[in-house]
Amino acid sequence: MTAPRRRAADMPWDAWGDAAHATALPDSVRDLLAQVLGAPLADAPRTAEEDLRLPPPALPDTARAALVDAVGPGHVVEEDAARLRHTGGKSTLDLLRRRAGDVAAAPDAVVLPGGHEEVAAVLAACARHRVAVVPFGGGTSVVGGVEPLRGPFAAVVALDLRRLDRLVSVDAVARTATLQAGLRTPQAEELLAAHGLTLGHQPQSYEYATIGGYAATRSAGQSSTGHGRFDGMVLALRVATPRGTLELGRAPGSAAGPDLRQLLLGSEGTLGVITEVTLRVRPLPAADRDEAWSFPDFAAGTAALRALAQSDARPTLVRLSDETETFVSAALSGREATPGCLAVVTHEGTAAHVEAVRELSARTLREAGGTELGTEPVARWRHGRYSGPYLRDALLDAGVLAETLETATTWSALPALRQAVTDALTGALGGAGGGPPVVLCHVSHVYPEGASLYFTVVAAAGADPLARWLAAKQAAGDAIAARGGTITHHHAVGTDHRPWMAAEVGPLGVEVLRAVKDVLDPVGVLNPGKLIPGDGA
Amino acid sequence: MTAPRRRAADMPWDAWGDAAHATALPDSVRDLLAQVLGAPLADAPRTAEEDLRLPPPALPDTARAALVDAVGPGHVVEEDAARLRHTGGKSTLDLLRRRAGDVAAAPDAVVLPGGHEEVAAVLAACARHRVAVVPFGGGTSVVGGVEPLRGPFAAVVALDLRRLDRLVSVDAVARTATLQAGLRTPQAEELLAAHGLTLGHQPQSYEYATIGGYAATRSAGQSSTGHGRFDGMVLALRVATPRGTLELGRAPGSAAGPDLRQLLLGSEGTLGVITEVTLRVRPLPAADRDEAWSFPDFAAGTAALRALAQSDARPTLVRLSDETETFVSAALSGREATPGCLAVVTHEGTAAHVEAVRELSARTLREAGGTELGTEPVARWRHGRYSGPYLRDALLDAGVLAETLETATTWSALPALRQAVTDALTGALGGAGGGPPVVLCHVSHVYPEGASLYFTVVAAAGADPLARWLAAKQAAGDAIAARGGTITHHHAVGTDHRPWMAAEVGPLGVEVLRAVKDVLDPVGVLNPGKLIPGDGA
Repeated sequence: MTAPRRRAADMPWDAWGDAAHATALPDSVRDLLAQVLGAPLADAPRTAEEDLRLPPPALPDTARAALVDAVGPGHVVEEDAARLRHTGGKSTLDLLRRRAGDVAAAPDAVVLPGGHEEVAAVLAACARHRVAVVPFGGGTSVVGGVEPLRGPFAAVVALDLRRLDRLVSVDAVARTATLQAGLRTPQAEELLAAHGLTLGHQPQSYEYATIGGYAATRSAGQSSTGHGRFDGMVLALRVATPRGTLELGRAPGSAAGPDLRQLLLGSEGTLGVITEVTLRVRPLPAADRDEAWSFPDFAAGTAALRALAQSDARPTLVRLSDETETFVSAALSGREATPGCLAVVTHEGTAAHVEAVRELSARTLREAGGTELGTEPVARWRHGRYSGPYLRDALLDAGVLAETLETATTWSALPALRQAVTDALTGALGGAGGGPPVVLCHVSHVYPEGASLYFTVVAAAGADPLARWLAAKQAAGDAIAARGGTITHHHAVGTDHRPWMAAEVGPLGVEVLRAVKDVLDPVGVLNPGKLIPGDGA
Repeated sequence: MTAPRRRAADMPWDAWGDAAHATALPDSVRDLLAQVLGAPLADAPRTAEEDLRLPPPALPDTARAALVDAVGPGHVVEEDAARLRHTGGKSTLDLLRRRAGDVAAAPDAVVLPGGHEEVAAVLAACARHRVAVVPFGGGTSVVGGVEPLRGPFAAVVALDLRRLDRLVSVDAVARTATLQAGLRTPQAEELLAAHGLTLGHQPQSYEYATIGGYAATRSAGQSSTGHGRFDGMVLALRVATPRGTLELGRAPGSAAGPDLRQLLLGSEGTLGVITEVTLRVRPLPAADRDEAWSFPDFAAGTAALRALAQSDARPTLVRLSDETETFVSAALSGREATPGCLAVVTHEGTAAHVEAVRELSARTLREAGGTELGTEPVARWRHGRYSGPYLRDALLDAGVLAETLETATTWSALPALRQAVTDALTGALGGAGGGPPVVLCHVSHVYPEGASLYFTVVAAAGADPLARWLAAKQAAGDAIAARGGTITHHHAVGTDHRPWMAAEVGPLGVEVLRAVKDVLDPVGVLNPGKLIPGDGA
């Protein structure tokens, strides 16, 4: 087993990412926003850490002793600083609550197991002592997935998997690698690069999100068009549950009944804790090529992406911004926007493959009405590909409500779904002492049958931004469900999307999930209140 | 909805396929086999249909009345001829039993629902009246999947889905099609071809197997290298269960929790009856190219296939025979065998794609030690691609034991697994009044991480061929489980692989499957004794 050399520092409790990279909103953007939203911006100061009052830790002595038995005395942490940094994820709701000083949800302790057996021992101890367990990887959830809900229990611990940070094995012949769940992506890539390999999974949360978290939430990376979703890269899973260990996945293809890996993928810590993942890996690309394209409008752009997705020449990455996002992105970087819609395309692989696919795909895009813009817009996009959440923090600091949501559907249903979600957001967020919200949209994951739609919403905060966002989210979620889209393409369910799970899989599907949970977690201590409707939380 | 024009006749009760295509073993092959197996061949006559004695149908009057209510009076059939043709599938065990006159397993009736609601009504009636239900599509199972086991119930019906034979809808923009479960593949392809579309799924059972059966058993077709496994083509499923209907699959990609489609895919009629499947379809290929390649030996051939599977230039179909299969195939068609191992490769798609991929793949195969042989061996393979089961019938008629089995594993584990299975078969089947068996092997489904291994076994029948095969199957299955392969890559589980399911998914995995069954089929009437270890059957 090989351990990586370094790990980035924890994220601030009240913001995204690396505090050194935090930015303020440029004055030009402030002015533009005030004008567009029809309301002056007013700084929204954050509560200082020393002014926070966390509830006293409520872990019973017997439970603490059992947890210490499981992981050793140094690895059950009850200090406020650690508890605060495990008080939920990074949604706008999470940040607004914590910035306002609401830290009532803090877990009673943070438990840091050192390996699979210790995770299993923690789960057994929590089931025995009736303590809720919230698995915590990168802490990047934007759907309430790591909110430390107690459910019907008197205490809750955050199960931080950071010590599971090893590359367990590499099979260079089969091109697979087994990684521990707590590895953050840059560490994982560093370990794989030593073998000339890469995972090729780059979601916006890349710098902090973990291998286990990707599996537990069915992550999709920016290169999903070429490399596939994370769930599609998973060959095998090792999962600790209060009832014992599941080892799932024996071959690259199998007809041996239902695929139980697919029950644990996306289970968000409610059915078990994923401790090791065996993944498809690939050689570091020998060649790559970037190109930007412009389309007259979003309809032409999506038609072009569809042609590409249904062709034999799919790029590694493709992403299309709508007219508003194209305009706003340019404005944010102080450039003049190209008219219409900007698309970013990249190809990776062997030199021969990149050349062959690039030629075919360029022909497809040109025939669909695209104009090639060269590489510079891609370089700009690459530079900022992980920085969206920093901008959100700056907007929140400036008293502006900003959040994202996403869905996916078929190509044929895409235009109406986009319109319905935009209308829902605009309807819910308009008129609170200002103009309508700004709703940006892009397509960033394409399949032969359809694509994702990713919305960014910027709106006046109003007197109660939390309530405003909850109403907007409800309206958008209802619009998605009514139009047959999925309630989430890659953000997962957590608490925030749980109200739509019955629409997503039907009441009988919910019963199935609950029955599986009853087998694996009969006491119900695993991440209560998440994903599966109807538990006590 | 569009109905297809014609449907092939039912298969004979005692053999594969179309009776008009049955062949006898050529004398030259008989002589060769007698010599190789070390025992003279002796014709094994089949029992005549008029000499069979089926048990009297045992359907209680109340149950019959409820079923007639569900599907109409003409669609509950209790005649011997229909019952006989639903007495199990087409494994060698099935055929040996029935040819010997053992038809004790005949179902008590054949029920023919006309649509989803009628299937649901049948399941409700069977649960209420405690009658086992065995879903029956093409009847092509070779693992006991359609054996009419009663479980703890007094009666069993075969639920024949042939009347669910409609193309429900086509989405030309998203390139998806919704097909009813009882459509055989040639009918489905005929309906899709009218829209310029194709499914591209061609297993050996192509002419008889059904859309629902493919989904229920996680079929893999001969073009799986390019088009993927059947489960990978499924966008959505409609499933009738005794507890109601499941509608699963809302988008081409989703992070809305566990993927419940993957619980119903491969469920083999034990959790519900799949009535409609929404599938990825593709345009009829504009171009194709066939080429055969020769490799000095199986190790060189598998290394070449691995290089291809891990490259950017994967063919539509690739298949590599080992030395013995290469030799025997040539001998069967009266040709001189090429030395070493024969591989068959095909490319399909647009003309530009075929040309680009063909060039890259030819380079890869040449660098791996391959010699191109032209198209003629591929034409020969295409001609006989669905005819293997007819040859098996001829061998059984000639008193020779013949059967196939398959598995899959990683490239790194492939050589040892192949050796272990070959040794197990040779050990179990050698020495019964003859020489060792002939064991052929090919690789026909490749993935970046590994491949399938498909074994064909021909052996002296001995005094009790049934017992001999059961012993060989046990030895081979144990070898597969011990080496970490999957117990089945595409034949499914049924009765025959059920003993290895606990090894495949672990005892906790079996508990999960059983809990799901208890939700969807609380009385346990759905295909008892199949797939999930531990029920009463």
